[in-house]
Amino acid sequence: MVFLFISLQKKEMIDTVKNRRTIRKYQQKDISCNLLNDLLETSFRASTMGGMQLYSVVVTRDAEKKAQLSPAHFNQPMVKGAPVVLTFCADFNRFSKWCKERDAEPSYNNLMSFLNAAMDTLLVAQTFCTLAEEAGLGICYLGTTTYNPQMIIDALGLPELVFPITTVTVGYPAEEPKQVDRLPMEGLIHEEEYHDYSTEDINKLYAYKESLDENKEFIKENGKETLAQVFTDVRYTKKDNEFMSENLMKVLGRQGFI
Amino acid sequence: MVFLFISLQKKEMIDTVKNRRTIRKYQQKDISCNLLNDLLETSFRASTMGGMQLYSVVVTRDAEKKAQLSPAHFNQPMVKGAPVVLTFCADFNRFSKWCKERDAEPSYNNLMSFLNAAMDTLLVAQTFCTLAEEAGLGICYLGTTTYNPQMIIDALGLPELVFPITTVTVGYPAEEPKQVDRLPMEGLIHEEEYHDYSTEDINKLYAYKESLDENKEFIKENGKETLAQVFTDVRYTKKDNEFMSENLMKVLGRQGFI
Repeated sequence: MVFLFISLQKKEMIDTVKNRRTIRKYQQKDISCNLLNDLLETSFRASTMGGMQLYSVVVTRDAEKKAQLSPAHFNQPMVKGAPVVLTFCADFNRFSKWCKERDAEPSYNNLMSFLNAAMDTLLVAQTFCTLAEEAGLGICYLGTTTYNPQMIIDALGLPELVFPITTVTVGYPAEEPKQVDRLPMEGLIHEEEYHDYSTEDINKLYAYKESLDENKEFIKENGKETLAQVFTDVRYTKKDNEFMSENLMKVLGRQGFI
Repeated sequence: MVFLFISLQKKEMIDTVKNRRTIRKYQQKDISCNLLNDLLETSFRASTMGGMQLYSVVVTRDAEKKAQLSPAHFNQPMVKGAPVVLTFCADFNRFSKWCKERDAEPSYNNLMSFLNAAMDTLLVAQTFCTLAEEAGLGICYLGTTTYNPQMIIDALGLPELVFPITTVTVGYPAEEPKQVDRLPMEGLIHEEEYHDYSTEDINKLYAYKESLDENKEFIKENGKETLAQVFTDVRYTKKDNEFMSENLMKVLGRQGFI
């Protein structure tokens, strides 16, 4: 009699991504330097414009530093609550310094270079996040980074040609939230050409989102009539967008990118 | 009685990323719709600003369409050579249309909204690339996307509030290039605060890159004295950067983002 056990227990990475959720509450447990550095070093293998690696990552573990960063992120509790806060910065400073040391004249003080560096930075940030989740950690992106860039620049001492693009809080999960909804993929993919959306398309694409109890609750809480109004009138308003756009230009100028 | 336990070694996703290289030559083999859609749909689980999903992906398989896109990418052979070309676009059109259909007044025609949408887009693009590589595909990012955005907008019919951010060519690898160099990670990570680079730091960080035979060859080919000069005088020049920055502003204006 022969028993043949084949264990094909390979956990597929794609399943980790399929099941992912943003984690905002973390265990009181440090992330070891070894693990963090391995994840970061690996993420630096992400594609980069011309091999230039136009980014820097500032690692915050110190409680005082977190307290300094916290208001820039509207005091969202993840900043003080996570063992590690990572500020991913577009960085043309290092590359430009290298040029100057090698009889070359850098000219990366412009919008195109900012965008190139921002892209490099985001590819690294997202590679890090995917790897971190695969390693059992939870992450949260803080979109507030570009709303209050000057506060972050001051807190972290970022020189000219360095600009904070996004912040990720990381830690071992202390919650397992419900997975949030996504639009049906046919609404996000266009075959060969962009197919603009008719009223009917929009109704179909947003039907599930609008049907969710939590979103109906969200409308009530905010005293609005539609979910879209919560976005336009409360969360991402004209006034805020215009103020932050102006501020962004100002700080990009101060950091030497415009 | 024989018990035979075979435990297949779990291939770690982190190793895929550690060993990755950009692939520019592809087999003449299609990517099935099932696989491509599974990878794309999974990548849409990436973090997104306020759950808004501010992106669209245009899938190009048609040879004529590739020929149309090719000049926008300076005729790099990957565009025509890859079975699939993906143009990842920042998209505030779909969300704004939804707002208008729901008695809400969108105001995402500004720089901050463009940057938010660009970030969403890049997180999806990079999640897709990591998943694609794990599935045995090879990818190449085309940074040329933001150099010639108008040609891409025309070829793909992108409406207002949609902007091409990056392009990824995908296919089964037909080459196994040498892995390219990266800076030592201590030059990319800053503990608690940004530590600016001294001449000595720069010399140390760039020593390996400068020692490589292919880079010495690259200097000679271009008739330059230092590797940095190849970047400043040939690959990413002041003239090009300034022209493309101006062009970027112009096209951002045309697409309604400024």
